[in-house]
Amino acid sequence: MKVKMITRMKMKPSFEIKRQEFIKAFFDNCRVLVDKGLSLLVPAETIEPIKLHQAIRWSLFAGGKRFRPALVLSVGFAFGANENQLLRTACALEMIHTYSLIHDDLPAMDDDDLRRGRETCHKKFDEATAILAGDVLQTLAFQSIAEDESLSFETRARLIGEIARASGTPGGMVAGQVHDLDAESKPITNDELERIHRKKTGALIRASARAGAIIGEANETELNLITQYAENLGLLFQITDDLLDVTATAEDLGKTPGKDAKAEKATYPLLYGFERAETMADEVYKATCDVLEKIDKDTEVLFAIAGFIRYRRS
Amino acid sequence: MKVKMITRMKMKPSFEIKRQEFIKAFFDNCRVLVDKGLSLLVPAETIEPIKLHQAIRWSLFAGGKRFRPALVLSVGFAFGANENQLLRTACALEMIHTYSLIHDDLPAMDDDDLRRGRETCHKKFDEATAILAGDVLQTLAFQSIAEDESLSFETRARLIGEIARASGTPGGMVAGQVHDLDAESKPITNDELERIHRKKTGALIRASARAGAIIGEANETELNLITQYAENLGLLFQITDDLLDVTATAEDLGKTPGKDAKAEKATYPLLYGFERAETMADEVYKATCDVLEKIDKDTEVLFAIAGFIRYRRS
Repeated sequence: MKVKMITRMKMKPSFEIKRQEFIKAFFDNCRVLVDKGLSLLVPAETIEPIKLHQAIRWSLFAGGKRFRPALVLSVGFAFGANENQLLRTACALEMIHTYSLIHDDLPAMDDDDLRRGRETCHKKFDEATAILAGDVLQTLAFQSIAEDESLSFETRARLIGEIARASGTPGGMVAGQVHDLDAESKPITNDELERIHRKKTGALIRASARAGAIIGEANETELNLITQYAENLGLLFQITDDLLDVTATAEDLGKTPGKDAKAEKATYPLLYGFERAETMADEVYKATCDVLEKIDKDTEVLFAIAGFIRYRRS
Repeated sequence: MKVKMITRMKMKPSFEIKRQEFIKAFFDNCRVLVDKGLSLLVPAETIEPIKLHQAIRWSLFAGGKRFRPALVLSVGFAFGANENQLLRTACALEMIHTYSLIHDDLPAMDDDDLRRGRETCHKKFDEATAILAGDVLQTLAFQSIAEDESLSFETRARLIGEIARASGTPGGMVAGQVHDLDAESKPITNDELERIHRKKTGALIRASARAGAIIGEANETELNLITQYAENLGLLFQITDDLLDVTATAEDLGKTPGKDAKAEKATYPLLYGFERAETMADEVYKATCDVLEKIDKDTEVLFAIAGFIRYRRS
């Protein structure tokens, strides 16, 4: 992939429409694959304790975009790994993501009733079940990788360490959630906002891309480039997420828009103004693509994912 | 260790007093070692997010008995493993145990204010912090094993799978907690009581002993015997725990005695009567020791642990 970025940006309208169609088909394929994998990795609803497994599946199959699994798969494919080697790790990252959503939605945290257009886990079931469903999704995630016979033991251990650091503390998702809760209803600096997102959502996106590269046996240079790509992509994801909270409709989002502003949550449009946040999204998008130019693999899908994030509607 | 069990039972009073002293010293040594290990594996209180790391340490260093780590160490030692190989796994099991206590104590679950004689995590901090401290202790547990350079990659993967199954669902700790919550304030059968304990506390005790044997490279027969030992030990632990709730003082327990009866929780004394439960404890103690007789290793400490559990005061 050596198409010059400047060309990409200029031909945006028609080129992007084609690419959005292409990437939507890719995401659809990923979703089917990942849903099938998840369904096999998580106990059936007929197995005791039934309520726990119902709650897990309620949140796991709530129509998520499967963005993190798609990233594992697309990066892994770029480095020559196959579906079979990538699937469990892709599913594990979705389990970690879903556990974090279930716990974030709890009354003691963000207290949300609606997620992906349906009742949150503790609303549909109860708080105790939601806490335990989140707990055990984390467990199942690590179990799925530890028992993945398509990977060497070394790769399994490396992936578990990588994903644990990204979802834990001090540099990972849970630490980011603590910073985020601390920041509510008080003014924060731009640096603090960036720290929240780098840990809360960025770290797991970064780990997803790196996991694909690790399974695909990328060399050190390639792994560094993929890491930069993923860090930019994570930032892009967050800025566009904040922008969507301002512009999107409830139907598009499957959750209440304007919620961040109402909760006085720090967002990019709030801290920088809407126009500047839009420009930042363009700049980060360009930086994301620039890194990909340096990777000598078929990165067409990775370009398309960046475009999809930049121009998404939900 | 080939002393006949009948002799053990008969010489109980004086012999047991000596053994209790011996095992207390062993537990003390384990505690010092494990506390040091835990302190290195968990981020310092000076590292951001400070409140999260304070909460983790508040619950982790609350004077727990370190029973699970002691089991990893004692079984591991019996099979020739060294301290260095065993310590991280021992610490990981304590992290998993502590995460489960933090979450069990939450208002949505058992709603406890006191644990090990001090405020529970959500009382000392707040609910959100307690949920996240529990979450991240689980993460740190798996991370600690995945990054344990004293173990082969194969052993790390095997241990993580083993501990995940034991702490997860459908056969593990979280499943047991769901069964336990379901059983509150309604009559349950003896079989249901056994299922609760086998999953809720038994599975992790079983995994602790098995982890020590796996690190010590026990053969299949030995691993099966250690598994039987641990299953008996877990049952013994639960019966004596229930008996202590009837007989012990608050000072001994560090928590409110009689709490189970008040909550109408199913316990062995409640289901079988106090006398029969005492006899059951003796029978299970004997069975625990009988299994050890079949293992051709120095299992003195493992005998002593069983005795310690049978005759403990807290």
